[in-house]
Amino acid sequence: MGQGKGPLAGIRVLEIGHFVAAPFCTRLLADLGADVIKIEPPGGDPIRQWGKQLQGRSVWWSLHGRNKRSVALNLKHRRALDVVLRIVRECDALVENFRPGHLEALGLSEEALRNARADLVIARISGFGQEGPYKDRAAFGVIGEAMGGLRFLTNHPPAVTNLPPPRVGVSLGDSLSGVYAAFGVMAALWQRDRRGGDSRGRTLDVALTDAVLSMTEGMLPEYGALGVVKQPTGSRISTAAPSNAYASADAKWVLIAANSDPLFARLAQLMSQPELASDRRFNNNKVRVENVEELDSIIAAWTSRLAAGQLVQVLTEHDIPCCQAYSAAEIAADPHFRSRGMVTEVDDPLLGRVLHPGIVPHVCDDAGRIRWCGPDVGAHTSEVLAEIACLSNTELDDLRNEGVISP
Amino acid sequence: MGQGKGPLAGIRVLEIGHFVAAPFCTRLLADLGADVIKIEPPGGDPIRQWGKQLQGRSVWWSLHGRNKRSVALNLKHRRALDVVLRIVRECDALVENFRPGHLEALGLSEEALRNARADLVIARISGFGQEGPYKDRAAFGVIGEAMGGLRFLTNHPPAVTNLPPPRVGVSLGDSLSGVYAAFGVMAALWQRDRRGGDSRGRTLDVALTDAVLSMTEGMLPEYGALGVVKQPTGSRISTAAPSNAYASADAKWVLIAANSDPLFARLAQLMSQPELASDRRFNNNKVRVENVEELDSIIAAWTSRLAAGQLVQVLTEHDIPCCQAYSAAEIAADPHFRSRGMVTEVDDPLLGRVLHPGIVPHVCDDAGRIRWCGPDVGAHTSEVLAEIACLSNTELDDLRNEGVISP
Repeated sequence: MGQGKGPLAGIRVLEIGHFVAAPFCTRLLADLGADVIKIEPPGGDPIRQWGKQLQGRSVWWSLHGRNKRSVALNLKHRRALDVVLRIVRECDALVENFRPGHLEALGLSEEALRNARADLVIARISGFGQEGPYKDRAAFGVIGEAMGGLRFLTNHPPAVTNLPPPRVGVSLGDSLSGVYAAFGVMAALWQRDRRGGDSRGRTLDVALTDAVLSMTEGMLPEYGALGVVKQPTGSRISTAAPSNAYASADAKWVLIAANSDPLFARLAQLMSQPELASDRRFNNNKVRVENVEELDSIIAAWTSRLAAGQLVQVLTEHDIPCCQAYSAAEIAADPHFRSRGMVTEVDDPLLGRVLHPGIVPHVCDDAGRIRWCGPDVGAHTSEVLAEIACLSNTELDDLRNEGVISP
Repeated sequence: MGQGKGPLAGIRVLEIGHFVAAPFCTRLLADLGADVIKIEPPGGDPIRQWGKQLQGRSVWWSLHGRNKRSVALNLKHRRALDVVLRIVRECDALVENFRPGHLEALGLSEEALRNARADLVIARISGFGQEGPYKDRAAFGVIGEAMGGLRFLTNHPPAVTNLPPPRVGVSLGDSLSGVYAAFGVMAALWQRDRRGGDSRGRTLDVALTDAVLSMTEGMLPEYGALGVVKQPTGSRISTAAPSNAYASADAKWVLIAANSDPLFARLAQLMSQPELASDRRFNNNKVRVENVEELDSIIAAWTSRLAAGQLVQVLTEHDIPCCQAYSAAEIAADPHFRSRGMVTEVDDPLLGRVLHPGIVPHVCDDAGRIRWCGPDVGAHTSEVLAEIACLSNTELDDLRNEGVISP
């Protein structure tokens, strides 16, 4: 029932997660066809209250919960454990993101889980990981981003402003660890299931802090080898110019990356100042970087006279890499995203017409599909427990009356 | 020879990529044990010149190229095609990140590749994807981040400053699409190789812009349903307070997230101003958000009197989520990262002692390993061509003399 089309058709995944990281991981798996069963408390995952609401419902949930089946189960009830383990028995993988130790406290230690399903792949996502001196500390996406080194870098240089460094604007540490977990689950399932594979489950320990640190390019090797501490460079790139965000006449930000000599010559021509390309201050990348303040002022004076749409049009005509810093409105209107199915109109039975981002990665000859939107809490409780846990109607009624499941 | 330990032992991947995205994808695969063969021009992937250098060598390359075998091959030579296809025949997957159409121009269309290896998984990473009106436009990480919506959000509100929005500080669009591609490759290989699987190759079309857009949480659904354009919130979170970065006495940024009533009461106590917890301006999250400027000033006055290390210590003792915005120096010194192997000292034969970030995800009972550091251009040309392409020494000499391969 829960299985879709795509390369992951045939996999069943149990999510016992909340908020962002684990649910993001399972969304990726479900988008490619896995049957994802989400266990949540009868009151629902708290993320169902996050963000803007329509008729008392989180709009984000339409996306965050899509393609998943929801089972509402009170994990604190003594009879819940048996129900969970009956589901586990029929699953390939489990994804969770509690604080380390919490799953064990619920009676769901790795040992207990593997007693139910010996070859279960278990992906554990947490702020600091399952091991290490900080493992019991509370962590959010913000903490992962800051300790992993990203927050320090996402800033203007201290000489420019003393404003604090901005957030990336999304809970990147959470979502990123979700993608890594999805990759890890598939790596473990491949080795388990392939012809000649070892048929055994593996456990993944994915930390937000680790996931962020893994993205920091040469930062750590360069510090180790040379003692150089990578510094924030604001909206520029330290080694190439011009590459910056410039304000347009209609107060939008337009990114222009004309940081090779031929690109810069074309930009100078386009700005009707062709002499800049041979100017001693700007005639190669090294001097352009040295004189970047002056250079950016000249470019900004030009961009301030044209609307963002015009700028992108003329720059693109001259094959100069550029784009507007898109807001939701511009993304929704963009013909390229529409053409690729990356902006998709979806009829959500609970919300009406909404827009969803499409499925990443796009598998050309076996694409995943948006099969349904984030369901109501417990929308699939009876269906899943009958089909997978093999419980009879009498047993379901009994569990319902005892407050173990809902509805 | 190239195969390591970890869940991906047994997979062979060919990378025909450059710069960040495709090589980042294959680093993840190689870290978990895949045999990754990187084909690069005799002059090397241009990224070998990026970032800080030691003895004329990029330090970042030590990380970016680790666990891979390098084959130097002049793809423009008419005899190169046969060599590539001989390698393809022995590979499970190919990862590339040229502009759409370039691979075809080299004679390596999907059809040609599948003629050599019928069940090859092909991951194509590009700025805008293989299809859609913008597919031929030049794109960098910066463009992916800006069009995917992240650059607009990673900014202070316009009322705070008119400085342009900072970059995330790394080529996030590139690396992120690399992680998505690694996930997609494993999804495709799972369905191909599992017992009962369909034994067929699949093609992935991963766009930087798509990968970034997929991280934007409720931004697009909320715009679609309500017409609300998500706005940048600077260093704060719009819906909860206090959650911000505060300057310490030693001019570091310390993140504090004390945005529940109990957490805020503990913070007020710690600041020796317990009365704030019952103050009408601050006694619940709603009013704290309304009075956030005043609240942040009070907290910043307190943090400005203590060094970052002291702040983190006392806040942690009071179980208030916090951390410093770590630079490379603090990451390298952190005992938690060291304990988890996420900061690892590695002896690079070309560079000496360097630091590498560890392997993500951590597979507890079958961990990947750093087997070797980014090798010299063509370090494995002879080895790979003899072992995999089954070329004799005479044939290798001939190809070398003709300038097809090096060394």
